[in-house]
Amino acid sequence: MSSRPNLALIGATGAVGTVMRDIVSTREDIWGEIRLVASARSAGKVLRVRGEDVVVQALAPEVFDGIDVAIFDVPDEVSAEWVPIAAARGPVVIDKSGTFRMEPDVPLVVPEVNPLDARNRPRNIISTPNCTTLSMMAAMGALHAGFTLSELVVASYQAVSGAGVAGSARLYDEVEALAGDRSLGQVAGDVRGVLADKLPGESPFPAPIAFNVVPWAGSYKEGGWASEELKLRNESRKILGIPELKVSATCVRVPVITTHSLAVHARFEREITVADAHRVLEAAPSVVLMDDPAGGVFPTPLEVVGNDPTYVGRVRQAVDFPNTLDLFVCGDNLRKGAALNAAEIAELVASEK
Amino acid sequence: MSSRPNLALIGATGAVGTVMRDIVSTREDIWGEIRLVASARSAGKVLRVRGEDVVVQALAPEVFDGIDVAIFDVPDEVSAEWVPIAAARGPVVIDKSGTFRMEPDVPLVVPEVNPLDARNRPRNIISTPNCTTLSMMAAMGALHAGFTLSELVVASYQAVSGAGVAGSARLYDEVEALAGDRSLGQVAGDVRGVLADKLPGESPFPAPIAFNVVPWAGSYKEGGWASEELKLRNESRKILGIPELKVSATCVRVPVITTHSLAVHARFEREITVADAHRVLEAAPSVVLMDDPAGGVFPTPLEVVGNDPTYVGRVRQAVDFPNTLDLFVCGDNLRKGAALNAAEIAELVASEK
Repeated sequence: MSSRPNLALIGATGAVGTVMRDIVSTREDIWGEIRLVASARSAGKVLRVRGEDVVVQALAPEVFDGIDVAIFDVPDEVSAEWVPIAAARGPVVIDKSGTFRMEPDVPLVVPEVNPLDARNRPRNIISTPNCTTLSMMAAMGALHAGFTLSELVVASYQAVSGAGVAGSARLYDEVEALAGDRSLGQVAGDVRGVLADKLPGESPFPAPIAFNVVPWAGSYKEGGWASEELKLRNESRKILGIPELKVSATCVRVPVITTHSLAVHARFEREITVADAHRVLEAAPSVVLMDDPAGGVFPTPLEVVGNDPTYVGRVRQAVDFPNTLDLFVCGDNLRKGAALNAAEIAELVASEK
Repeated sequence: MSSRPNLALIGATGAVGTVMRDIVSTREDIWGEIRLVASARSAGKVLRVRGEDVVVQALAPEVFDGIDVAIFDVPDEVSAEWVPIAAARGPVVIDKSGTFRMEPDVPLVVPEVNPLDARNRPRNIISTPNCTTLSMMAAMGALHAGFTLSELVVASYQAVSGAGVAGSARLYDEVEALAGDRSLGQVAGDVRGVLADKLPGESPFPAPIAFNVVPWAGSYKEGGWASEELKLRNESRKILGIPELKVSATCVRVPVITTHSLAVHARFEREITVADAHRVLEAAPSVVLMDDPAGGVFPTPLEVVGNDPTYVGRVRQAVDFPNTLDLFVCGDNLRKGAALNAAEIAELVASEK
């Protein structure tokens, strides 16, 4: 690869695309051309990247000509159609969609955890994980390396921007529609009706999200599972390289704009103490330990949003379970959870000689 | 006990007291006098109960004279001082505080689960559980009766009214202080500083709660545990009568006014299917099953608030764990979680001959 490889961002106008433009503009500038690509609807828009105006191009086979690395952040069905076209035309494709993640000949990469997997990409495609899985991977990868993870029970507190720009707008709109009503805590009332009157558009969520939590994320899967819950299981196994890892997850959307949080109950093969975990997490790249609850120190999503690392707090030794820790993790779902991980994989590929 | 026993409500002006007055006014009227008692500060106030005006009396030994059942909903230290005084003066005391719950000679009662324990009260005191524990007890008690519970991993989504009237006011105030700022999802900024400027009073929460989740509830305990997490463990064991039950919990406050939710990962001694669980939960008193996620049916706290039952949804068979279910439970923390359970214990006592 030339010393200044060319990068294309496909889906440059979405929630993740916006953060992606910020990331490539503020990290060490290793790229030659940065091409912005989106749907025909957004083509012609002018967006800033690295302080320069760039005209958005419509997705077409020709936009991949001369490109070394293409990062896709588009809906699954667009990836299914266009990623193979792009990959056949030359660039290494880094795909954020769920389409290829579990394919055996497509690596699923978190650079802090399994960077070498990125080199083995027979289809010229590398997938980047679901944002919920990513929120805990740097931390769990570091702990697994030392203590061998065997079981994970996870409950998520997922931010609305995980459902895109429409998700954030919906929470802001609902909060404004319900603000001033101080009866919310007494009677159920017809909240859906009130919201439907005030906000006639469709919500990206299956229930009211302001002043509420919604135990559903993704699409319906067999056995009553939500797709997001099975992704967390299957992707954790693949990234960590533990095909027999036991995982149960409940994914819940909460009225937080950005940054996913996870309550994690993690069992290891080897004995592990809180002090062990603190030592490993303090040394881990991209992880920040915030764990002094007696002093009021633990991460909260609103206070770590916009930052790259995974924040870990509330590390406790399970009282009744051997070799088991309970902990609380926060990660910005638009940064490490999406754009940043893709950018880091792109830099990994660009650094190959 | 006479056919129309007299009831005293101690702490009648608080968040739970308000719901308690509503409950004794709307359930079958079995009480003679209902006496309202609060701190000296609130004495003389006139409150409605059973459609009548009642003057609040100041807490003093004499207020228990002629009373058959006294329900205490006051801070731990007030219970520690006054519950023994009351119990010595005659009435059976039902105490909502944490003070006596784990004492071996004080029963901890959920009428649907362990009603007989209420009869064995050598100190004339019956405790009612922490609201987080109570949110799941009716459901878990029913499942335990059929399948023998052995392990619980719980993550909570706790409403702010669990911290009293001040908790609800704080969330409303913070939402109003931050409303209109659509930059919350991009950068962490100094949210604490902004809130401190706009809301100079002390918050009942150790971090901003609007547009946030806060992984802390209660006071600091050894090993980094929050008191609420250990209560959930110890009280579940006592109520269910399983001293060796394995429990790990992470308690998280969410921006919901009322109704606690719990993501529960429950392992049983006996084989259990989703169909088994549905059958048991549909038959269980005080439990409502809402479990058709493909049709958008699951409980959310904002939509079940103000109702008495425990709502259960998202029942799934754990893919990797034997005899294990994952489920999602919602219960109104001011009703079943507090006032209703105390009222039901009071009725149980009143029904004794």
